[in-house]
Amino acid sequence: MTASLISANDVAGAFEALKAARPRVHAVVNSVAETFAANVMLALGITPSMTSNPEEVADFATGADALVVNLGTLDAGRREAITRLVDSAGHRPWVLDPTFVDRSPLRCDFAAGLIGRRPTILRANPAELAALGRGEASLPALAARWNTVLTVTEAVDQVASGERLDRVANGHELMSRVTASGCALGAVMAAFAAVDPDPHDAAVAALVTYGVAGEIAGRAAKGPGSFQAAFLDALYALSPDAVASGARILEVQD
Amino acid sequence: MTASLISANDVAGAFEALKAARPRVHAVVNSVAETFAANVMLALGITPSMTSNPEEVADFATGADALVVNLGTLDAGRREAITRLVDSAGHRPWVLDPTFVDRSPLRCDFAAGLIGRRPTILRANPAELAALGRGEASLPALAARWNTVLTVTEAVDQVASGERLDRVANGHELMSRVTASGCALGAVMAAFAAVDPDPHDAAVAALVTYGVAGEIAGRAAKGPGSFQAAFLDALYALSPDAVASGARILEVQD
Amino acid sequence: MTASLISANDVAGAFEALKAARPRVHAVVNSVAETFAANVMLALGITPSMTSNPEEVADFATGADALVVNLGTLDAGRREAITRLVDSAGHRPWVLDPTFVDRSPLRCDFAAGLIGRRPTILRANPAELAALGRGEASLPALAARWNTVLTVTEAVDQVASGERLDRVANGHELMSRVTASGCALGAVMAAFAAVDPDPHDAAVAALVTYGVAGEIAGRAAKGPGSFQAAFLDALYALSPDAVASGARILEVQD
Repeated sequence: MTASLISANDVAGAFEALKAARPRVHAVVNSVAETFAANVMLALGITPSMTSNPEEVADFATGADALVVNLGTLDAGRREAITRLVDSAGHRPWVLDPTFVDRSPLRCDFAAGLIGRRPTILRANPAELAALGRGEASLPALAARWNTVLTVTEAVDQVASGERLDRVANGHELMSRVTASGCALGAVMAAFAAVDPDPHDAAVAALVTYGVAGEIAGRAAKGPGSFQAAFLDALYALSPDAVASGARILEVQD
Repeated sequence: MTASLISANDVAGAFEALKAARPRVHAVVNSVAETFAANVMLALGITPSMTSNPEEVADFATGADALVVNLGTLDAGRREAITRLVDSAGHRPWVLDPTFVDRSPLRCDFAAGLIGRRPTILRANPAELAALGRGEASLPALAARWNTVLTVTEAVDQVASGERLDRVANGHELMSRVTASGCALGAVMAAFAAVDPDPHDAAVAALVTYGVAGEIAGRAAKGPGSFQAAFLDALYALSPDAVASGARILEVQD
Repeated sequence: MTASLISANDVAGAFEALKAARPRVHAVVNSVAETFAANVMLALGITPSMTSNPEEVADFATGADALVVNLGTLDAGRREAITRLVDSAGHRPWVLDPTFVDRSPLRCDFAAGLIGRRPTILRANPAELAALGRGEASLPALAARWNTVLTVTEAVDQVASGERLDRVANGHELMSRVTASGCALGAVMAAFAAVDPDPHDAAVAALVTYGVAGEIAGRAAKGPGSFQAAFLDALYALSPDAVASGARILEVQD
């Protein structure tokens, strides 16, 4: 494994590029998460579109710079929409978020099929990854098998791809008390992948940016309600300097 | 009718049990209410799942400790999902929230069928109850007819079952200005029913807990927007002592 | 064109009528916008209902005072629901919000059909209007062709119908960073149209009321998260005097 190839300053540069580019992201996310994910994107200057209508997603994909697919509330219509969205991805980066595959065999099977379509970035929590990995616990091995940038979010997040493994220690515990905070992160990863040609760097930049904003919000919040508002405020006001000075990208010991 | 068999200290004990158990609640709620209901649950340490996909609900029910069913935005898919969820309930407590049955004959008929499946707790507002009760105004009579714990929420809430009738005077008027505050209460009732073997006590404990948090939020809020944030903060920070000292369970006069 | 026929005091009067009447508005809005639109309505004392189930919308229309139709997340079920809702409108005012017709030919065609049903008010942003107008850039000409009150929302909003053209300069830039703020405005227009017999005046009154609340919120907010809460608080606390003194209805130069 190679120690991190991306510095705090690189992340700040990616963030600056994101703010300048204002990419369009089409997100098929579960209905619980749609509003918060849209507001997170708007706070960062990203233009969200969210339809999960199978008849419309190809047109929206064409007008987007990056895509994100989330498996929550996965009815037949959403499965069809996701399939068509991925069919229409072309050169566009796309992020897969296999929400709750550990609770639903149907989702787990559908996610396995999507992994075969090679998502640019796969973002999961440990329980979801355990269900998808069928016993394989090595992140680099799974990233290699699936030929993707594999991101696992927990107290310290990890990003694995090819020979690289990065760890990011940003974030705040109140994030886990706000529904859709993980789903919205997937959308932010897609937006970074639209402006950074290296999807591994994009995933790290998204985790740092999101986590630094979470820490700023956590200092101002009294609980998960005020945290939500403070988090959107922090994303909106975030400066490249704050990203650079707040980044906690850990050295990985081989 | 018997005067209340549950004390403020009992409610605080149920609240402590809820916080310790962190139950999983599967909620099929209308799309307007999903996000707020999930955030209310997360603030209390409950793990929410929310899919209304008929193909998935049985798997999610299996992994849950309690269920809640809400009739908002009741399309054919949701009706099928609700039917299958109730089919999969087994020993798990489930709460029925017959949203807006007074506005839609289709919903009222569907709710009548669900009442025949004997929900553990039925939570309604007066207009919904009037539509369901077809002229019967006595809460204890309806609770007996339906063999359920019947809860009516208004300025002073009432809980009726068997020989018991309780009144709870907690809450804040701004709650009625926040969409989904009733729907989220149904989910909290389900969570209490997962940890308290007596569903009548669970309903009272949920009403008190929810109402005390609402009062705390109401003191901090300037309107329904800041109330929402303060309410989630209050649920998150709530202590058993605050529940015990804030509880207003009224004596029922026979 | 005629200079404005509605004064700041007229708008304050319409606002007072709205608060007194507490109209019921049925809104078929996209799933991203449902919660915020419902909370905006509740903050103003409007009673929202939101089902997009084709089997239910006629019953909900019957119980409503005004309707709003939004084309976001426009799947087959929603199209059917919208068609039935408009069929059931009768004498009730209805507002059309052609969300993202510029991104989806399917939506643009569907919107064209709805315009043929003559919405009371049509609210669009410039990109949506360009897609619908097929090259015609004159607002009064489009309003005449479609025989509707045509409202275009941007930094300075415009309202055109018959011989009238009004411009409203209220609002705050953070509104564009909150998802559904446009969709919720459509619902507020519907509510004003329920209490004001002149739909042109209703549209102006909605824009002023919404914009004045946005300005109050903008002064208190640190970003789009705190803005959302402050905006709902401002709508809730708004007085007719604040509306009258804050209104910025501009003279239109012929």
